[in-house]
Amino acid sequence: MHLLLLNGPNLNLLGQREPEIYGSMTLKDIESQLQAKSIEEGIELECFQSNFEGALVERIHEAMGQVQGILINAGAFTHTSIALRDALLSADIPYVEIHLSNTHSRESFRRHSYLVDRAIGIVSGFGGVSYLLALDGMVSHLRNSH
Amino acid sequence: MHLLLLNGPNLNLLGQREPEIYGSMTLKDIESQLQAKSIEEGIELECFQSNFEGALVERIHEAMGQVQGILINAGAFTHTSIALRDALLSADIPYVEIHLSNTHSRESFRRHSYLVDRAIGIVSGFGGVSYLLALDGMVSHLRNSH
Amino acid sequence: MHLLLLNGPNLNLLGQREPEIYGSMTLKDIESQLQAKSIEEGIELECFQSNFEGALVERIHEAMGQVQGILINAGAFTHTSIALRDALLSADIPYVEIHLSNTHSRESFRRHSYLVDRAIGIVSGFGGVSYLLALDGMVSHLRNSH
Amino acid sequence: MHLLLLNGPNLNLLGQREPEIYGSMTLKDIESQLQAKSIEEGIELECFQSNFEGALVERIHEAMGQVQGILINAGAFTHTSIALRDALLSADIPYVEIHLSNTHSRESFRRHSYLVDRAIGIVSGFGGVSYLLALDGMVSHLRNSH
Amino acid sequence: MHLLLLNGPNLNLLGQREPEIYGSMTLKDIESQLQAKSIEEGIELECFQSNFEGALVERIHEAMGQVQGILINAGAFTHTSIALRDALLSADIPYVEIHLSNTHSRESFRRHSYLVDRAIGIVSGFGGVSYLLALDGMVSHLRNSH
Amino acid sequence: MHLLLLNGPNLNLLGQREPEIYGSMTLKDIESQLQAKSIEEGIELECFQSNFEGALVERIHEAMGQVQGILINAGAFTHTSIALRDALLSADIPYVEIHLSNTHSRESFRRHSYLVDRAIGIVSGFGGVSYLLALDGMVSHLRNSH
Amino acid sequence: MHLLLLNGPNLNLLGQREPEIYGSMTLKDIESQLQAKSIEEGIELECFQSNFEGALVERIHEAMGQVQGILINAGAFTHTSIALRDALLSADIPYVEIHLSNTHSRESFRRHSYLVDRAIGIVSGFGGVSYLLALDGMVSHLRNSH
Amino acid sequence: MHLLLLNGPNLNLLGQREPEIYGSMTLKDIESQLQAKSIEEGIELECFQSNFEGALVERIHEAMGQVQGILINAGAFTHTSIALRDALLSADIPYVEIHLSNTHSRESFRRHSYLVDRAIGIVSGFGGVSYLLALDGMVSHLRNSH
Amino acid sequence: MHLLLLNGPNLNLLGQREPEIYGSMTLKDIESQLQAKSIEEGIELECFQSNFEGALVERIHEAMGQVQGILINAGAFTHTSIALRDALLSADIPYVEIHLSNTHSRESFRRHSYLVDRAIGIVSGFGGVSYLLALDGMVSHLRNSH
Amino acid sequence: MHLLLLNGPNLNLLGQREPEIYGSMTLKDIESQLQAKSIEEGIELECFQSNFEGALVERIHEAMGQVQGILINAGAFTHTSIALRDALLSADIPYVEIHLSNTHSRESFRRHSYLVDRAIGIVSGFGGVSYLLALDGMVSHLRNSH
Amino acid sequence: MHLLLLNGPNLNLLGQREPEIYGSMTLKDIESQLQAKSIEEGIELECFQSNFEGALVERIHEAMGQVQGILINAGAFTHTSIALRDALLSADIPYVEIHLSNTHSRESFRRHSYLVDRAIGIVSGFGGVSYLLALDGMVSHLRNSH
Amino acid sequence: MHLLLLNGPNLNLLGQREPEIYGSMTLKDIESQLQAKSIEEGIELECFQSNFEGALVERIHEAMGQVQGILINAGAFTHTSIALRDALLSADIPYVEIHLSNTHSRESFRRHSYLVDRAIGIVSGFGGVSYLLALDGMVSHLRNSH
Repeated sequence: MHLLLLNGPNLNLLGQREPEIYGSMTLKDIESQLQAKSIEEGIELECFQSNFEGALVERIHEAMGQVQGILINAGAFTHTSIALRDALLSADIPYVEIHLSNTHSRESFRRHSYLVDRAIGIVSGFGGVSYLLALDGMVSHLRNSH
Repeated sequence: MHLLLLNGPNLNLLGQREPEIYGSMTLKDIESQLQAKSIEEGIELECFQSNFEGALVERIHEAMGQVQGILINAGAFTHTSIALRDALLSADIPYVEIHLSNTHSRESFRRHSYLVDRAIGIVSGFGGVSYLLALDGMVSHLRNSH
Repeated sequence: MHLLLLNGPNLNLLGQREPEIYGSMTLKDIESQLQAKSIEEGIELECFQSNFEGALVERIHEAMGQVQGILINAGAFTHTSIALRDALLSADIPYVEIHLSNTHSRESFRRHSYLVDRAIGIVSGFGGVSYLLALDGMVSHLRNSH
Repeated sequence: MHLLLLNGPNLNLLGQREPEIYGSMTLKDIESQLQAKSIEEGIELECFQSNFEGALVERIHEAMGQVQGILINAGAFTHTSIALRDALLSADIPYVEIHLSNTHSRESFRRHSYLVDRAIGIVSGFGGVSYLLALDGMVSHLRNSH
Repeated sequence: MHLLLLNGPNLNLLGQREPEIYGSMTLKDIESQLQAKSIEEGIELECFQSNFEGALVERIHEAMGQVQGILINAGAFTHTSIALRDALLSADIPYVEIHLSNTHSRESFRRHSYLVDRAIGIVSGFGGVSYLLALDGMVSHLRNSH
Repeated sequence: MHLLLLNGPNLNLLGQREPEIYGSMTLKDIESQLQAKSIEEGIELECFQSNFEGALVERIHEAMGQVQGILINAGAFTHTSIALRDALLSADIPYVEIHLSNTHSRESFRRHSYLVDRAIGIVSGFGGVSYLLALDGMVSHLRNSH
Repeated sequence: MHLLLLNGPNLNLLGQREPEIYGSMTLKDIESQLQAKSIEEGIELECFQSNFEGALVERIHEAMGQVQGILINAGAFTHTSIALRDALLSADIPYVEIHLSNTHSRESFRRHSYLVDRAIGIVSGFGGVSYLLALDGMVSHLRNSH
Repeated sequence: MHLLLLNGPNLNLLGQREPEIYGSMTLKDIESQLQAKSIEEGIELECFQSNFEGALVERIHEAMGQVQGILINAGAFTHTSIALRDALLSADIPYVEIHLSNTHSRESFRRHSYLVDRAIGIVSGFGGVSYLLALDGMVSHLRNSH
Repeated sequence: MHLLLLNGPNLNLLGQREPEIYGSMTLKDIESQLQAKSIEEGIELECFQSNFEGALVERIHEAMGQVQGILINAGAFTHTSIALRDALLSADIPYVEIHLSNTHSRESFRRHSYLVDRAIGIVSGFGGVSYLLALDGMVSHLRNSH
Repeated sequence: MHLLLLNGPNLNLLGQREPEIYGSMTLKDIESQLQAKSIEEGIELECFQSNFEGALVERIHEAMGQVQGILINAGAFTHTSIALRDALLSADIPYVEIHLSNTHSRESFRRHSYLVDRAIGIVSGFGGVSYLLALDGMVSHLRNSH
Repeated sequence: MHLLLLNGPNLNLLGQREPEIYGSMTLKDIESQLQAKSIEEGIELECFQSNFEGALVERIHEAMGQVQGILINAGAFTHTSIALRDALLSADIPYVEIHLSNTHSRESFRRHSYLVDRAIGIVSGFGGVSYLLALDGMVSHLRNSH
Repeated sequence: MHLLLLNGPNLNLLGQREPEIYGSMTLKDIESQLQAKSIEEGIELECFQSNFEGALVERIHEAMGQVQGILINAGAFTHTSIALRDALLSADIPYVEIHLSNTHSRESFRRHSYLVDRAIGIVSGFGGVSYLLALDGMVSHLRNSH
C-alpha cells in the first residue's frame, strides 16, 4: 500500500507559530511519526508540503496510478481551491480531510470546504494526532474495500 | 479514566437497515469493540442509546462529576437539538462528535451541527471505525491536557 | 395489507380545540372512520398517537417488516424532526404525508417539511377528510406497484 | 353541483411522454375517469387544457357564477403565474391544487407555488389517482360548507 | 400626440369583481374617461387589454413609430414578465406604470416589478384615478421633453 | 379641507443642485404652484420642510385633528426612518408618498420604503409634477371616501 | 387565580452549573420564591420542569380549563419546538416568555423564538429575578383584562 | 441610587393615540407612577422624552458619572439608531430595554434591535406595566452587583 | 438530420431595434444564413418564432419524433418559463441554448436560465454568429453521439 | 484651499470615554493638530461636530461653493444615514471618509457605509492619526486634480 | 491576426481522466486541431497551459500589445480567480470563455464565473468542439469590429 | 525599524495599464518614493511584488522575526486568499491594507477583504499616495505602541 500525505499553505510553520495553541511539534515531527507508523504497517508513505496551489495540484497528478490513498490537510486552500478539488477528483484517489484545529470553532468562512463532500472521511480538532487517526482511518478503509 | 458513549435516534437499527451502506455491524458490535479496546487501555466505558432527546439530556446530567469525556453520535439530533448542546456545555465534559457516514455528502440540512463548534474534535465517514478513532482521539486529548 | 396511522404532537386535542376551525371530530372519530373503511377494503390498520418524538420513532422501528404503508400526520414534528425522517427512511416503508389544514396558508415556518420530499404523496387542507383521501391514495399506490 | 377541471402546459402529452414514470394513462383517460365518477355523484364536470396562460385565465373568468369548484393542475404555471392566481381569486371559486408527481422531490424551483396558500387543499404524488382524490376532497368540502 | 393605454390580465373583470374594493367602475368606464380627457387635450388615445402576454408584446411592437407614450397597468405580468420589459425597451417608447391598488400593501411578491426601473414614473393606489394622474404625468413629461 | 405638505432632508436645495436633472424649479416654486392649485380647489395647504427627523415627527403630531391629508416627500428618510412611519400611523392621517425621481432606477437601497405599505398611493418620477398629481390624487381620495 | 410555571430542558441543573454566571440559586429556590409571592397574592401556582418536549406538551394539555396563565422558560426548546408553540396556542392560555440570561447577547441561533410572537410579554436577562417580574406582569395582565 | 428614564420618538403621544390598544395612560402618568415607586425605594429618577435622536444622545452624555442605570424605551430608534447604541456604550451605564407592546408580534423590521445585545435585560409587552417591571429589574440588578 | 430553430419573444424585431447594438441583420437574414448552411450540410432546418409561450410549447410538442435537435434562443422566456423547460424535457430532444448578447453582462435577472442545466451546450455573445456556432455544435454533437 | 472637518455623533466624548482604547486625545486636541498642520500648508480649515443628523446635513449645505473638500468621520451615521450621503452628493464636494478604529473588526453592521462608495478615499484604524493622513490625502488629491 | 489559447488547472490531464465523459482527445490533440484550423485561416496561434494562477497571469501580461484575442478555458480558476479577471481586463485584450462541459449542470459553485461578464462570448458544453467554435466566434468578432 | 512592502498580482503593470485612471507612475516609482521617505525617517524598507500567492506567503514567512510592520496591497488576493491572511496572522506582524482605488466603488465582490478585520488600518482611494499615507500610519502606530 502506497499513500501520500499532502500539507497546504503555512503548515511549514508548524511548531514555530503559536506553540501554545498548536503545540511544539513541527511538520517534520508529524511526518516522522507517520512514517514510523507506516513502516510498522508495511505502508509506503510519501510527504509533500507546498504554499503553491499549483504545486499541490501537480503533486496529485503525479500520484495517479501510483498511490492508493491521500491524506490531505489543505489548510487555507480547503476553503478557496476548486482546482485542488478537481485534481483530487480527476486523479480518482480516495482521500481523507485532516485539520489540526476544529475549523467550526473559528471564523465562519472556515466552515465551508471544497473538498469535504467527496472525501472518505474527516478528522479534525486533535492537533498532530488528527494525522495519526486519519492514517488509521484510511488504512482501515482501503483494507475493507478490497 | 471514565468515558461515556452516547448514541442518538435510529442508531439502534444499525446492522439491520441498509447493510450494504452501513455494514452488517450492529450497535452492540460497535459497543463491544469499544469496550474491548477500553479495557486494554484501562478505561471504564459506559454505553447509552436513546431515541428520546430528553433521555440523552438526562444521561449527560448524570455524567457530571463522573465522566471525563463523552463520545457522541447524536444522529439526527446533531442538526436539531440545542437542548443536547446545552446539556453538554452545562455538564462541562469534553466531547468528540462522531458520524458513521460523511454528513457533508448527504442532504444539505446535515451540514449544520449544533454540537460541532464546541467539540474537541470530529471524526466522520469511516463507518464503525469512526468510533474507534474517536476513542483514540479522546484518550490522546485527555492524556495530553494533564 | 397492513397499514399504520401515526399522529404527532397535539393531535390528541382534536375536536376539543378550536372546533370552529378543525370541526368537532375527535382523533378517535377519525381513527374509527379509517378503521371502518379499512375493514371494508380488507386492510388491517393500526393507530398510534404520541406527543414524544422518540415514541413515534420507536413505533416506526416496530413497524419494519410488518407494515406495508404508513399514513402520517406528524403535526409540528413535520417541520422540526430529522429523527422522524430518518426513522421512516430506515424502515423503508412507503408513507403519505397528511395535514388537516393547508400548511401553506399559515406561518411561513410551516412551509418546510423534513418528510415531504421522500413521501409517496401529500394530502392536506381537507380537515378529517384528508385522512380518508390519504388512505385511498396509499391503497391505490400499493396495489399499483405490485 | 358544477365543477371545472383545468390542466396547464404540457399535460396534453400525458401518456405519451415518459410512460415508465407517469404511466400510460392519457389526459383523456383521466378526464373520462373523472367524468364517470362525477356522473355517479350527480356532478356536472367540464374539462379544459391549455398551454396558454391567457386561455386558462379566460376559462376561469367564464366559470364565474357557473361553477362551484375548480380542480387545477397548473403544471409549470404553478410556479410562475401570478395571473392564474389572480384569476382564481377574482373569480372567487374554491379550488384544489393537484400534482401528478411529488413536486417537493424534484427541482428546488418546484417547491414554490403561487396558488397553494389560497387553495382549499392539495393532493400530489399519486399519479392519475391524485385527480380522483382531489375530486373527492372538493365534493366533501362543498357538501360540508353548506 | 398619440398615446396607447395597455391593460394586462384580469383587468377585463374590473367592476365585476370585488366592487367593494375596486369600485363599480368597469375597464370600459376608465377607458371612456381617459378618452374624454384625451380629446380635450387634443391627444389620440388607443386602448388595448389582453390576458395573453404575447398579445401585449405584439401590441407594443405595432406601436413603434406611431405612439409617443404608453400608459401600462400590466397587472400580474408586472411581477413576472421580462418579455413585456423587453418589448417596451425595444420599442423605445416612454411609459408610465399604473396600479389601481398600492401593490406594496399586498403579498410580498407584488413588491417587485420588472418594468419599474425603466419607467418615466409610477402612479399607484388611487383606484381608477391612478389612470387619470398617469395620463397627466405622461402629457406633462412629453411636453417638457420637447 | 386642510392638507399638509411635508418635505424631508436636502429638498431645500431643490433648483440649486443638479438643475439639469431636477430642473430649475425651487422648493418655493413647487410650494407656490401647489398653494395656487389648492386655493382654486378651496383647500387650505400648509408647507413644511426640515432636515431634522425629529422636527418632521413633531410637525405630524401637531397636524393631528387639524389636517385631513398629508403629502410627503420624505427624501432619504423614506428609506431609514421608522419614527416617521410611526408618527404618520399614530396621527392616523391618510398620506400620499411622493418622489421627484423614480427611486427604483437609482441605488438599490432606495427601493425600500418604510412608508409605502401604509400610504394611500404613490406618485414618483415626474419631477415637480409629482406633487401636483399627488395633490389631485389626495383630493380625489378624500372626496370619494366621504 | 391559578397559574402554571414551566421550565424546559437543563433548567433542573440551575445553581449547580456555572454558578458564577447563573448564581447559586437552584430551580427549587426560584420555585419557592414564586410560591411565596403567589401565596401573598392569593394565587395558586403549580411548577413543572422536564427535559422531554413531549412531557411539557402534555402538561400544557392538562392545564386547559384549569389554569389562567402560564409562565414559561422553555430553555433550548424556545428555539426549536413548534410542538410547544402549538400546545400553548391550542390550550389558548395566555403566557409570558422568561429567560434567565439575555438571549440576544449569546449565539445567533438563540435570537429566534417560536413562542415569542404570541406571548403576552417577555422578561429576560435578570437571572432568577426574571421569574418574579414575569409573575408580576402576568398578574397585572390578568387583572387588567377582566 | 440615581436612575434615568428615556423615552424616544412618538411616545409623547401615549394615551392620545389608539387608547383601545395602548390604554388611556399618558406618558406623564407612567412617569408619575415610576416617580412614586422610586421615592418609596429611595431612588432619584429623572425622566426625559425626545423625538430627536441627537437630543437623546446628548441626554445620555450628560448622565455619565451621575446616573447608575438607564431605563430606555427607544421606540422606533430601537431599530434604526446606532448612535444611541454608541452613546449608551460610551457612557458605560447599565440599561434595560423596555417596550409597551410585544415587538415580535408586529412588523418584521421591529424584530431587530441595535440596543438589545448589550442591555442587562428586556421587558416588553405589558403596556405601562413594562416600565414598573423594568424599574424593579434594574434596582435588583444594581443591588445584586454591589 | 432534421433540426428546428426556435426564437422567442421580441426576436422578430431584430434588425429594426437598436441596430448599433444588434447589427442590421434581421431574423429573416439569420434564418436564411442557417438554411443555406444546413443545405450545404444536408440538414433539414425548420424555423419558428413566437411571442407566445404557449405557441413555442406546442411547436416543441409537434417536433417530437420528427426532429433530432433544437436550437433555441428563448429570449426573455429563458429566465421565466418553466413551461418551456418542461416541453423540451418532455419532448426529449437535445437542444442548444443561444443568446445574441452576453446575458451575464446585463441585468442580474438575466443570469438565471431555466433551460441551461439540461442543454447540450451554450453559445452566447457573438451576435448573429452565435446561431451559426450553435448549429455547428449541434451537428457535431449529433454526429458524435451516433 | 478651504476645507471642512465634520464629526458625527458621540465623537464629542473623545478622550473621555475608554481612553485605554481611543487614547487620551480629545476632539479639541485633534482639531488643533489639524488646524496647525493646515496653517503650515496654507489651508483654511473649519471644524464642526454634531450629534444631530440634521445639523450635519445643513452644515454641508452651507459649505456649497465655499469649501473644496470635506473630511468626515460620520461615526454611527456612517452606517445609517442616507440623508448625509445625499447632502454630500448634492453639495458635490469631494470628501474623505475617516474612522478612528478599524470598523471591519467590530460589529458586523459597521461593515456597511452609506458614504464609502462615493468617497475619494478612506483612512481608518490609526486613531487620531487617521485625521492627519486624511488631510494629507485630501490635499494631495485636490492638488493633483488641478 | 495573433491569438492566444490559455488552459487552466487540471486541463493537462485531458484524455487521461474519465475518457468516457471527456472523450479520449488530449489537450495536445485539441491544440493541434486549433493550430491546423488557424493556419488555414492565416492566424498565428500560441498555446499555454498552467496549473499555477500566477503563471497564467504573467502569460497574459506578456500578451499585451502582441495578441488580438484570447481563448480561455480557465477551469477551476473561472470560479475563484479575481487575479485572472484583473489580468485580462488590464491587458485589455478581448477574450472568449470556453468550457468543455456545461458548467450549469454540475455543482452549484460552478455557476458563477469571475470572467464571464466581460467576455465577448461564451461557448460551453460541446467537449473539444467548444474550442473550435470559440475560435470561429473570436475570428468573426475580430473581423467584424474592424 | 524594518518594514516590508508587498504588492500582489497585476500591480507590476502599474503605469502601463490605463494611465488615465491609475496615473503614469510605475510600481518602481512608488517603491522609490517610499524608499526615499523611509531613508529620511531612518527606516529600512524592503519591497516585493509577485503574481503568485505562494510566493507572497513565503515572503511573509521569511519576514518573521526580521520585520516590524508590513504594508500590503494584495490586489485581487485581498478578496480570495485565506492563505495570505493565515500567513500574516501566523507571522504575527502588524500590517496595513492599501488600495490604489476605492474598492467600494467597484464590483461588489471587491467589498469583501480577507485581510481587513485584522489589519491595523486601511488606506484606500488615493492612488500612489495611498502608499505614503500607509507608511506614515504604520510608523506612527509602531512608535505609539512602544
